[in-house]
Amino acid sequence: MAVKLYGIAMSTCTTRVMTCLHEKGVDFEIVPINLSAGEHKQPSFISKNPFGQIPALEDGDLTLFESRAITKYLATKHKDKGTDLLRLDNLKEAALVNVWLEVEAQQFNPPISALVYQRMFSPLFGGTPDEKVIEANAEKLGKVLDVYEERLSKSKYLAGDFYSLADLHHLSYTYYLMKNPEANLINSRPHVKAWWEDISSRPAFRKAAEGMTA
Amino acid sequence: MAVKLYGIAMSTCTTRVMTCLHEKGVDFEIVPINLSAGEHKQPSFISKNPFGQIPALEDGDLTLFESRAITKYLATKHKDKGTDLLRLDNLKEAALVNVWLEVEAQQFNPPISALVYQRMFSPLFGGTPDEKVIEANAEKLGKVLDVYEERLSKSKYLAGDFYSLADLHHLSYTYYLMKNPEANLINSRPHVKAWWEDISSRPAFRKAAEGMTA
Repeated sequence: MAVKLYGIAMSTCTTRVMTCLHEKGVDFEIVPINLSAGEHKQPSFISKNPFGQIPALEDGDLTLFESRAITKYLATKHKDKGTDLLRLDNLKEAALVNVWLEVEAQQFNPPISALVYQRMFSPLFGGTPDEKVIEANAEKLGKVLDVYEERLSKSKYLAGDFYSLADLHHLSYTYYLMKNPEANLINSRPHVKAWWEDISSRPAFRKAAEGMTA
Repeated sequence: MAVKLYGIAMSTCTTRVMTCLHEKGVDFEIVPINLSAGEHKQPSFISKNPFGQIPALEDGDLTLFESRAITKYLATKHKDKGTDLLRLDNLKEAALVNVWLEVEAQQFNPPISALVYQRMFSPLFGGTPDEKVIEANAEKLGKVLDVYEERLSKSKYLAGDFYSLADLHHLSYTYYLMKNPEANLINSRPHVKAWWEDISSRPAFRKAAEGMTA
């Protein structure tokens, strides 16, 4: 039975999981959740994710939520299939993958998600981008990317000279960022730019990004 | 050679790692970092954590940062020592531990860290608590804890009927929250309160909390 992914292809967190599924070559069925109809706040979805947020994943009798936990589960279960995303057979490499997974979650995600919200999602909901919020978060993201620039001048990918889940987790938000003036935060840093061009051209992400039409 | 933990005992993120080290019975040496002297922004510390934040950990020739990545490394390396914090031998249990680790990082940490910053740290730096920020974050945290209350009415701990790293990651911020009026967010929810009393009375945390004198 194919894995079921509840979400929408336009959502950054759904795409994060889809990219991982494609890297692993795992068959899945996407079950669309109608956000404008509030389907994510209905009991049938709340039973899958009590926080009422997409995505959720069903694999047999196991139901998971939080995109970053879902990808870790998939990368562990299908360790020997497709790309090795967690380096579980090497304690030190796995530790460095975890460090950069946490950097994405704690340092990179807060400013980039605020930026993408202002530029892309707020207008969709009838709002106007708040330029002060954009400016403050662009400054924060720039500082984070200064560290990335230094790091990527020493290793090809974040955790080392191998592509990992830590890189993958950056894809969906950066993809939307690149459609906006803040693309310059990436383009002005040569190592970050080369890394972005490399990771965003992977077939698994190209496939997942087809639905990213926000 | 003992593991070296660079940080200060008063810091929530340093204590998170110390609690894990105690649960695992791993010997360590704490190397204090003088934050008021800006030692965390000096090259010797930046070489350990390019983001200039405590804690960092040295284990032989491996240097790690981000407290949540450090605890995962320790819990993996010392899987068979002390408390089993990640349930790595059981794919489903490990997946649920990861779900609730992500819930802590993505849902619980943003509002509680903002609250504790306003109540405890801002005054230390000569500031005044911002009541509007406190109110907004207390409301957010309350909604997160409503989900916890429901969850903890069905299982003793977050990931299941076993204590895990997901519970442990909540300890240090909640410890400071409980010294403030917002303790009522915990005390008013019977299952959350019972869970808090259980996890905060574990010897590993009691030991780590000795230095939490903010």
